[in-house]
Amino acid sequence: MSENAAGRSGRPGRGRRPAAEVRAAVLAAAGDLLLRDGLRALTFDRVAKEAGVSRTTLHRWWPSPGALAAEAYFARSRPVLDFPDTGDLRADLITQLRAFVRWLKDEGAERPVAELVGAAQTDPDVARAWSENYALPRRELARERLRVAQRQGRLRADADLDIVVDQLWGACYHRLLVLGTPFDASLVPRLVDHALHGAAPR
Amino acid sequence: MSENAAGRSGRPGRGRRPAAEVRAAVLAAAGDLLLRDGLRALTFDRVAKEAGVSRTTLHRWWPSPGALAAEAYFARSRPVLDFPDTGDLRADLITQLRAFVRWLKDEGAERPVAELVGAAQTDPDVARAWSENYALPRRELARERLRVAQRQGRLRADADLDIVVDQLWGACYHRLLVLGTPFDASLVPRLVDHALHGAAPR
Repeated sequence: MSENAAGRSGRPGRGRRPAAEVRAAVLAAAGDLLLRDGLRALTFDRVAKEAGVSRTTLHRWWPSPGALAAEAYFARSRPVLDFPDTGDLRADLITQLRAFVRWLKDEGAERPVAELVGAAQTDPDVARAWSENYALPRRELARERLRVAQRQGRLRADADLDIVVDQLWGACYHRLLVLGTPFDASLVPRLVDHALHGAAPR
Repeated sequence: MSENAAGRSGRPGRGRRPAAEVRAAVLAAAGDLLLRDGLRALTFDRVAKEAGVSRTTLHRWWPSPGALAAEAYFARSRPVLDFPDTGDLRADLITQLRAFVRWLKDEGAERPVAELVGAAQTDPDVARAWSENYALPRRELARERLRVAQRQGRLRADADLDIVVDQLWGACYHRLLVLGTPFDASLVPRLVDHALHGAAPR
């Protein structure tokens, strides 16, 4: 995954593209393919063709199409799932979670997420790739925003930020993957209020 | 799925067993098989053999092995996942969720759950069976306990009980299926306290 490896992968006659550029092109092509046609369509052959790189390059950088899919999904979703910081934690969580739910429900991410998490349950390579290239990096981004809020006193000093992540984004995944019940962005404000204030009398 | 159907399924020479008894024997055999050998082992042939019923009976009662697996998992887990009602909601939730986490992590349920939810993401028959025969009936049992607590004023009148379910059991599924991070029953009291009181300063 060095500059040299990328350099060598430039196809004859096209000149060499910098590794970062090649990598970005591959992730963009794979992300588009994943959202449009689903996980099964994401083969090294198709991605290589659409990104204009050699199959060898893909093999060198990603151990499996599942690993590429998970990283492509992370790259493709990152700008959509950005964490705003206006200083108003409740409003920022609502903004981010609404974007997350719309991304799943209205922008085509529901199927690739379900396919990737589904495959992860029985394929250890996909499991590792999903966890390392998507789920854990995303959790870390959420934690960062929550840590800022905690330092500002908007979350209790003893609040468990991992549990907050489980009770916000995990709650959405629960409906999506486990219950299979319909939901939309109108759920989000109540979800955030429950995570912030709980269900017991105050 | 009538008594008659069950009666007809009794094998010649064994006499007729009542439908409910045959059904319970099938579910018990399928549940044992599922926990011991996983979802792939659960074929109609193997279950028929282990339960001493005909393959025809299984076909008559369940549309697919996935549907049988989901119902068997519900039946097998129900006594383990009972909802106590001592009048102390926090203590009762901790007891039930500890049993749930131990059932997953120490008693072999993690693999069949992961396999069933995994298969549900790409197989509509398994998805329907898991949702109708396990996930939604389990949610209803949780809601029943939470409704009692709400009537007793231990949850706010405007608390959203489905969100409470998402933020307790869904949080565990999030770690199990999406993050793939290790967890154990020591997580439970904090999880319950967050669901009851939230993460914001009181």
